[in-house]
Amino acid sequence: MAALVGEQGLDQLIVADLVTTGDSSREAQANVFWLCGFTGTSAFCLVGPDERAFLTDFRYVQRAEREVDPAFDRDRIGGEALAEMAKRLRGRVGYDDATTSVRSLRKLEENVDQGVELVATEGLVERLRRRKDAEEVRRIAAAAELTDSVYEWLCERGLAGRTERQVQLAAEQRMRELGAQDPSFPAIVAAGANGALPHHEASDSEIAQGIPVVIDMGAIVDGYCSDCTRTFATGELDAEAVEVYELVHSAQAAALEVIAVGISGKDADAVSREPIAEAGHGDHYGHGMGHGVGVEVHEAPRLSPRSDDLLEQGDVLTVEPGVYVPDRFGVRIEDLVALTDQGMRNLSSVDKSLRIVG
Amino acid sequence: MAALVGEQGLDQLIVADLVTTGDSSREAQANVFWLCGFTGTSAFCLVGPDERAFLTDFRYVQRAEREVDPAFDRDRIGGEALAEMAKRLRGRVGYDDATTSVRSLRKLEENVDQGVELVATEGLVERLRRRKDAEEVRRIAAAAELTDSVYEWLCERGLAGRTERQVQLAAEQRMRELGAQDPSFPAIVAAGANGALPHHEASDSEIAQGIPVVIDMGAIVDGYCSDCTRTFATGELDAEAVEVYELVHSAQAAALEVIAVGISGKDADAVSREPIAEAGHGDHYGHGMGHGVGVEVHEAPRLSPRSDDLLEQGDVLTVEPGVYVPDRFGVRIEDLVALTDQGMRNLSSVDKSLRIVG
Repeated sequence: MAALVGEQGLDQLIVADLVTTGDSSREAQANVFWLCGFTGTSAFCLVGPDERAFLTDFRYVQRAEREVDPAFDRDRIGGEALAEMAKRLRGRVGYDDATTSVRSLRKLEENVDQGVELVATEGLVERLRRRKDAEEVRRIAAAAELTDSVYEWLCERGLAGRTERQVQLAAEQRMRELGAQDPSFPAIVAAGANGALPHHEASDSEIAQGIPVVIDMGAIVDGYCSDCTRTFATGELDAEAVEVYELVHSAQAAALEVIAVGISGKDADAVSREPIAEAGHGDHYGHGMGHGVGVEVHEAPRLSPRSDDLLEQGDVLTVEPGVYVPDRFGVRIEDLVALTDQGMRNLSSVDKSLRIVG
Repeated sequence: MAALVGEQGLDQLIVADLVTTGDSSREAQANVFWLCGFTGTSAFCLVGPDERAFLTDFRYVQRAEREVDPAFDRDRIGGEALAEMAKRLRGRVGYDDATTSVRSLRKLEENVDQGVELVATEGLVERLRRRKDAEEVRRIAAAAELTDSVYEWLCERGLAGRTERQVQLAAEQRMRELGAQDPSFPAIVAAGANGALPHHEASDSEIAQGIPVVIDMGAIVDGYCSDCTRTFATGELDAEAVEVYELVHSAQAAALEVIAVGISGKDADAVSREPIAEAGHGDHYGHGMGHGVGVEVHEAPRLSPRSDDLLEQGDVLTVEPGVYVPDRFGVRIEDLVALTDQGMRNLSSVDKSLRIVG
C-alpha cells in the first residue's frame, strides 16, 4: 500500500470516511476498515512511503487499541477533526473522491498548510479493495455458508401463510443467532406481484400459496458480506411462471459457465441477457447481471451492458439474472462466486432447481 | 420550499443522494425522504419556483408511485443517472455539499449544459429539516414511546447473566415486533468497564451483578428516529458508582431546566458540564451534551462547548450528559425533548432514578 502511494506520485493518501461532517455510513467506513480493521466511525488514516497513521476521536480511542492493525501509529484528534487532519498533510496528497463530500474537501482545503496539493485518486482504494486475498475469500465464504443455512432453515419452516415481513425478520434474526454481525442489507422477501419489484421492501401482506417468492439476502461475517438470491414456489406454479423460472435458471447457468479471468463485465452480462431477450423478456431484465462483493455488498467489478471491467483473479462477484413480469411475479437466481488461482469457486450452495416449499 | 429556492437566488435546488456513485446510505437518502417521502436509494429531486421533479431508476419506479408526494412530477432515468440529471439543470443550481461527493459533483459539472452554475447550498436542506412540524414530532414521539416500552420490557427480563450482545439483539428484535422499521442505530449495551467507552459495541461477555450497565437505543417509526439512554444497576453499586450516577442525574436535570427557545447549544451544554467538572470528572465527559434528532438520529442543532446554534421552536434534541471513568464504568442519561409552541416537551418517560434490575 505504502509503495503504491509512491507509485501514484503521492506523498500521502488519505483513507477516511469523509462523506459528511456528521455520522458516517458503512459505505464510508469501508475503506478504513479494509485498510486497518477499525470498525468505528470518524476515523482517518494517512498512508505514505514512511507513514501509517490512524486518527480517531475520544469516543473510539479504546476500540482503536483493540482493532487497529499495530503497524499503524495511533493518535487522538479533537472535535475539529478535519481541520486537525489538514495540519498533518504535506506535499501531494491523494483523497478518495467517491467517499469525500464536497464540504469535507473544502474544509481540508481551508486548513492545509501552503504547498499542500489535494488530488482525487479516482477510485484507487476501490481498485485495491477489489482484489480479495485468501483471508478475505474465507470470510466471504463463511458469510455465504451462513446465509445458505438460513435458506435451508426458512425452507423447513415454509413460507405460505406468513407475511413477507415475518419471513424477513425471522431470516435476519436467524443470521444473527448463527453469528452474523448483521445482514448485508435488509433481506428482500417479495411474493407474487411484489417479486416484479427488484428492490421491494418486505410488506405485511401474507404470502399466498402457489406463487413464486423471491428471497434475496446476505450476512456480514468478520466485516465481509455475502449475497444470494433464490426464488421458491409456495405450491404448484402456473405454466408461465415455470417457464420463466427455467429461463432464468438456464441463463444463470450459462453465465456461470463463462465467468473467468479476462472476460468483460459486458460480455458476461450478455451471455445471460441474450436468452432472456430471445424469449421476449428483454424489457423485464432491467438491472446488470452482477457486482463485486466484499466489505461492501456492492463494489467493483460491475457486470452489465455498460461495463468495461475485465474480470480478474481475486474478484468475488454475484451472478444474478432476473425476469420481472409487471403485476405478475419475478424470478431472480443469484450465486456468489470467487475467481481464485484454482479457477472459479461458487460460494453459494443452495439448490437451484425449482423448489416447492409450501 | 419552492419559494425558498427562489429566495436563495437559485433557479433549481438538487435534493438527492449523491454521496457515492454506487449505493447510498440512510444519511444520504435522508434529504430525499424528508422532501417527498421516498424511501429507496438512487433518487433525485429537483425543486424550483415552478418545478417539483422526482427521478429514479427502473428498480424503484413502482415504489415511487406508492410513496412519492403526488405534488412531484415523477420520471424514470436510466443507468447514467448523474449525466441524465445534469441535462435537466438550468441556470443557478444549488446542491447540498454535505451529501454530494466530490466525484458526483464532477460528473454533474462534466455533463451540464453551458451556462449552468452549480452552487453549494451549505446545509440549506439541513436547516430546513431542523424545524419539525407537528406530524414529524408525532412520529418521533411514537418512536420514543416504543423505545420506552422496550426499556420496561428489558427491565422485567433482567440483565445480569445475559451477554451484552444477547440484550442488544433482544431489544432490537422487540422494537421490530412492536412495529419499528429498524433501530435508529445498533443498540449500545455496555456493562461495567465497557460503559466507559461511549460507543462500545455489544460484546459476548456476560453482564455481571452489581455493576452499572449503559443502554443507549432508539427506534425508527414512519421514517423518524428516537434516541434514549438509561444506566441501570445489576445489583447494589459501590459508593463511587452511586455518586457518579447521582452527579449525571442531577446534571441532566439541570440541563433540562434550561432547554428553551433562544439558549445557545454552548450555554445549554455548560449547564451540564460545570457540575461534572466541579466534581473532578471534567475529563470524563468527552462528548457534546446533545444533538438534534429527526430523519437522522444525529442532525442539527448541536449542543456542545463549540456550538453556536441557538435553540428554536421546532427543534427535537437529546439531552445526554455522561461520565466515563476509564476501566471502571460509565453513566449516561439521555432524554429526547421537543421544543413546541407549548414549550419543552420531554418525549422520554423511562424513570431516571437509579434502578436495580438484576
